[in-house]
Order: sequence, then C-alpha cells, then structure tokens
Amino acid sequence: MQAEAIFTGTEMLLGQIVNTNAAFLGRELAAAGISLYRQVVVGDNLVRIREAIDNARRRADLIIVSGGLGPTEDDLSREALAAALGLPLVEDPAARENVTRYFAARRRPMTPNNLKQALLPAGARAMDNPHGTAAGVFLEHEGKVYALLPGPPREFEPMLVNQLLPRLEPYGARREIIFSRVLKIAGIGESGVEEAVKDLLHSDNPTLAPLAKPGEVTLRLTARAKSQEAARSLTALLEITIRERLGDYIFGTDDDTLESVTGAILAARHLTLAVAESCTGGLLAHRVTNIPGSSDYFLGGMVTYSNEAKVKFLGVEPEVLAARGAVSPEVAAAMARGVRQAVGTDIGIGITGIAGPGGGSEEKPVGLVYLGIDFRGQVEVRRELFMGQRENIKWQSTQSALYLLWRSLRAQCE
Amino acid sequence: MQAEAIFTGTEMLLGQIVNTNAAFLGRELAAAGISLYRQVVVGDNLVRIREAIDNARRRADLIIVSGGLGPTEDDLSREALAAALGLPLVEDPAARENVTRYFAARRRPMTPNNLKQALLPAGARAMDNPHGTAAGVFLEHEGKVYALLPGPPREFEPMLVNQLLPRLEPYGARREIIFSRVLKIAGIGESGVEEAVKDLLHSDNPTLAPLAKPGEVTLRLTARAKSQEAARSLTALLEITIRERLGDYIFGTDDDTLESVTGAILAARHLTLAVAESCTGGLLAHRVTNIPGSSDYFLGGMVTYSNEAKVKFLGVEPEVLAARGAVSPEVAAAMARGVRQAVGTDIGIGITGIAGPGGGSEEKPVGLVYLGIDFRGQVEVRRELFMGQRENIKWQSTQSALYLLWRSLRAQCE
Repeated sequence: MQAEAIFTGTEMLLGQIVNTNAAFLGRELAAAGISLYRQVVVGDNLVRIREAIDNARRRADLIIVSGGLGPTEDDLSREALAAALGLPLVEDPAARENVTRYFAARRRPMTPNNLKQALLPAGARAMDNPHGTAAGVFLEHEGKVYALLPGPPREFEPMLVNQLLPRLEPYGARREIIFSRVLKIAGIGESGVEEAVKDLLHSDNPTLAPLAKPGEVTLRLTARAKSQEAARSLTALLEITIRERLGDYIFGTDDDTLESVTGAILAARHLTLAVAESCTGGLLAHRVTNIPGSSDYFLGGMVTYSNEAKVKFLGVEPEVLAARGAVSPEVAAAMARGVRQAVGTDIGIGITGIAGPGGGSEEKPVGLVYLGIDFRGQVEVRRELFMGQRENIKWQSTQSALYLLWRSLRAQCE
Repeated sequence: MQAEAIFTGTEMLLGQIVNTNAAFLGRELAAAGISLYRQVVVGDNLVRIREAIDNARRRADLIIVSGGLGPTEDDLSREALAAALGLPLVEDPAARENVTRYFAARRRPMTPNNLKQALLPAGARAMDNPHGTAAGVFLEHEGKVYALLPGPPREFEPMLVNQLLPRLEPYGARREIIFSRVLKIAGIGESGVEEAVKDLLHSDNPTLAPLAKPGEVTLRLTARAKSQEAARSLTALLEITIRERLGDYIFGTDDDTLESVTGAILAARHLTLAVAESCTGGLLAHRVTNIPGSSDYFLGGMVTYSNEAKVKFLGVEPEVLAARGAVSPEVAAAMARGVRQAVGTDIGIGITGIAGPGGGSEEKPVGLVYLGIDFRGQVEVRRELFMGQRENIKWQSTQSALYLLWRSLRAQCE
C-alpha cells in the first residue's frame, strides 16, 4: 500500500508551528509496512487542498489529510475531499454525536457552526475522536482509501493509532504492539555500559538503545509483537541478560530516579538522612526533597560553602582543613560524619569539590569531587573527576552521591 | 513572489527526523514578504524529486529545494534540477572551492565522490557554505528562480538568511533586521503585567509579547527595521514606556536571572548572604550557588526540615513553633534572623511553607509559604499562596525569595 499525506494549515507555512504530525505519521506507517512517498503541506485554502487531494489520488492508494476538520470557515478538508471526488456532504449521526457529546460532557453550549463537523462526504464513515469535537473521516472510493484526521497532535495521534491503522489491516497494514522498557543506570559510564552489552546492540527485536545523560545511562528495550504479552516477554528475556551483567548499576526502571528509589528504601526501612554540601550548593538536598513524603526521612541539610561553616556546623577540624585542603577525602568523610552527628540521623552524606569555573589548580582541577557517606558510623569515600560546566558538575556530583547512597542501602539490605 | 518548497530526505518520510527547516523557512519567507503556498517532502529518489520540481515550477516563481546536496549516491537534488530544466551539469569553480576548502581546513583527505558537489546545472551560481562541503545552487531560468540548499539546519539556516534572501531582493523580497529584547519581571503576576501594558499589546512594530513562567513574567519586545540601529531604537522607546509602569518589577533583561542579578549586586557591594530553607529543601541555595563566583558572597545555607533542626541550628524558639506552627510569619522571620546570626552574614533569608502534596490543612493549605529577610537586623516577611505541584511550589517560593532579596538590595541602594 502506498500512501501520500497532506497536512493543512497556514500556520505551518508561516512557520508558526512545527509539523510534528508528519514525523509521527511517518514512524507509524513505516511500522505498519505502508510506504509513504510524499508529504504535502498546504494552507487553509479550498482550491489548494482539493488540488493536493487530486494529485495524491493519481499516485497513491491511501490519502491521509491532517487538519481542517474544525468548525470554522478555515476548516475545509471535508469540503475539499467531497469536491475532489464529486460527492455530496451528508450529515453523519456518529459524527454529530461526536460533537454534541463533547459539549455535553463539558456542560458548554454548542454554537451552530459546530454542526458543520457532522457533514461527511457521502459513503464515508466517522472515526471516533474522544479528545475533540471533530470526528475523523474514513472513505473507500473507487479502490482508494481516504482518511481525514484532526490536526492537533493529541487528537491526531490516538486517532491514527486506534482508529485508522486497524481499518487498514484488510489492505495489508501490519498491526503490531510496541512495548518499551527503560533500565536506569548509574555509577558506570556510557562506554562501560556499551562494552557490557555490545553484543546485544544489533538485536533487531527487541532493540536495545543506550542513551547517556549527565551522571546516568539509560538502556531502552523496545519489542514489537502481535500482543502486549508477547512484546513484554521479549523485553523481559533481554532484561534478564542485561541484569546479569550490569545488575550492580541498574538502580531502577522507566520513571525511577535515584532520589525516588533511595527515598523509597529509606522510608520503608525507617532510616533517616542528613546531607552536608559544599560544591553542590544545596542541589542534593533539593533533589532529595523533591520526593513527596521526604520529610519522613530527610531531617536536614547544610550548605557549608566557607571553611568557617564547615568547622562551626559540621565539626570539621581546622587542622584537617589546613593540612589537606577543603577538597579532600578527609574533609568529605568529616562532613558526612559531622552532619550525621549534628542532625542526629542514621546516614550522613558529605560532598566537597570544585564546581568551577574558577578555583581549580593543577593538583586539584575543576571537576574534582570527593563524596563521603557515613552509614551508622561506617564511612566510605568516593573520588570523582567530572567534566563540564558548573551546573553540570553540580548535577553529576549529586548523581554520584545518590548512587553511593543507593549502593550502601543495597549492601545493608543483603 | 510566490514560493514552493521541496524538502528531500527519506528519513523525514520515515519520521526519523522532524523537518525543522520547514518552520524556519516559513518564518523567514513570511518576514521577507514572500508567499509560501506549498511544502512538499519527498524521499531521496530522482524521479520523485524531479516530478516535485516540475509541479512546483508550474505554480510558483521561486522553487526552493532543501537537502540532497551531499556527496553520496542518495544526494540527487542537483541532478533532479538539471533533468527537470533540461540543462547539463558543469563543474563550477566556486562550488569546487567550497568542497576542497572544507577538507583542507580540517586537514582531512578528500575522497573523489566529493567532487560531485562541484557540478551545478549550467547557468547556476554557487552559494557559499562555510559550514559544510556542499555549496548551494542559485539559478534564474525562464523567469523563475530555483534555489538548492543543504539539508542540515546548521547549513540550511545561515545560507537561507545570508545567501538566498539577499539574492531575492531584486524580486521584491524585503530585507529587514529583527531585533528582540526581553524584559524579565518578578513580584507581579501575568494578569498584573498584562493590565499594565494592555494598550501596548496590539502594537505592530515593535510587537510586545508577554510570556508567563512559574514565578516570572517576560515581555519580549521585537522590532523590524532596515537597520540594527533603527530596530534597537524602536524597542528602546517602548521599553521606556514599560519601565515607567513596571519598573519596580523589572529585575533584568535577556539572559538575566534573579540569582545572577542579585549575585552581581551582592558581589559589587561586598555583602554576604546565608539562607535557611524548609519547604524549598535546598533549591534556593542551589540557585544562588549556580552563579560562578557565588562563594564570594554566599557563606552558607541550612535545610531545616524538622522542627528540631530549626531550634538547634537557627535558634527558633520552641514556644514560637508550638504557638504559631512551623509555617508562620514568625518562624520565617526567626529563620532569617537565626541563619544570619549563625553564619555571620549581612543578609539572612528564611523560607517556611507547605510544598505538598501532603501536610496541608484548611487553615494552612498546600502552597502557603512565608518568606523572611533579615537585612542587617531589619526584618521583612512576605506571605504567598502558590498553586501547582510540589516542584512548582518549591520553584515559585525561591523566585519570591530572590525577588524579595532584589527589592531589598535595591531599596538599600537608593
């Protein structure tokens, strides 16, 4: 089946909006095995929409029009299709129901111009639109298929997937379920992840796609199958293999974040946390407290930018600061211990480093960060050297701190 | 002048990339007074590109083709144009120079297939491409203008603006400078801003566009004129009028943020700052410390989530907490005073509130926030009631705190 797509809307020609329906349609048709050879964008003009439909039907079997289904005078796609095929417009009960239902559900009066949306070319069937007033139009005519869909993406996308593609199955469109699952990874770089799974990266179904973000790598597993269950089990098998290799770094899935995952463990085990931050300047406390309910386990934080504050509030010894410098493993450990004792929690985290752009030296460059964690008196320190701008170094430092927390909580669990 | 645009690239038909050139071209042509009636997307296929050019030249005076100018076998736009017009391809010295210069500058050897990019339809002129190997093509033929531009946006956009549009001036294209300036506003809501400037919102040149963000409103002033100077002075006149009405709320322009503006004042005046946060959980300290050099004026922060921490570290009196509750103007003031004295700074800020989703009551709902500032012993408190999700309430609270700081610094200045 060969398709041609027509997108109507003067605002696209003026560049006021980007035509995202085009890319969505392209992906969905490709997945359904339908060839799309041409896309056309025209303004809200009856002559030009009609001409575009006329040209398209000479070349393609499936003509899809996006937009122009609303109630205003600029909405001309139904009229253009009827004119191109020489068909009258007749009122369709399902399309009428689509409009009236929309207004009834919102308890708003319907202006008469809305009933224009109930007029379809004779022989067409309405495609239900739960997200707007205008039903879609599906018409088989002289061996060709015509489909009119509403322009707003939140109406266009579900109608394409749920209404149009199923109707194209008799014409050979493949129907496939696509299921994705994301594994979220920290504590190891992108190259380490890719090295571990490189033999799996060329798999065709499910596919495996790594994506590096600052301080985090995600692996997206995507399977296509005839059913949700089949697609799920394809990804589940791949996930088992990946977890065997990277289990120590996979902290969550899908929408999990390090702060949500560690927060859930802290809450479940009734553990409490305090943090002392130098170079991250409050970002760690901010992230921890983004989680609703974090006040149950997060008791306090200190942003000790100056040496005086480190001494006064965290009890870091001035001699250690003098001998090792503020950015040192000793100070990171002392900050973690100090804030745990000062606030009175099970766990303390200390971060000290150089976020830049100033303040670096040959010995201690910008990006050098020490992270300390004190888990009921058991202290561990991690050294990192991050690249990037100030905000990026702050972010990566908090990723590393939260990963350290996650690993400690996990070790204590086992 | 009427234009039609053809975008080549199978990856667009498959939905693998979004066609951002289309929107950019639409805006630029509209600004130049050229009507764009149609856009067509076709794959990398000689027959279909040629057919698209053939159709376009029957309808339009200006035919713009994007993409297909590279060195590979899939790059077919030059061939398609030559075939459509019945012209031979001949080597063009400037186009050849564009390719060889590119490789020479990068000290990379040039493979022979790259020389294909030097072949232009006879009579065409090359348009310089400083960002890639392929020169653009400009051809006047039988009263029509044909322009081939490279597809990558970072090559397409500057070539359109710097090379093609100037060449269209003899055909009536307007050449205008567009100059924008953004005024950044806090401490007043969107409706307050719109009310103050509503008589200016329908101005045609310069235009005035308000945009509301959480805790901030921006006004974008955009002028079109023949020269940069003329455009600047158009916006400057409008800015004077707006500042007369909203000067107390306009904290900066363009890329300024509340943290950058207040940071600059603190640094210039050698004032120091400490903050005590409850509901914002460290976000205020994080934002203040996002500014390079903030360690010169930001000496420390406390995230005192629990009442115990407020008492222990900030000296908030337990009686006040018991009598007025943690979310109260008295506690906000006590936090500001307490952190200023504990850290030893000129200015202290205290924030206490309910970020939600839990913790609200009828008397003290989610979104209720008190902000205190202590400026060398002079204390001011502000009450806010924000709407939105947890992270949004945190953000708006820090906006309000930074606005309070900016206003205090300004008042002390005058």
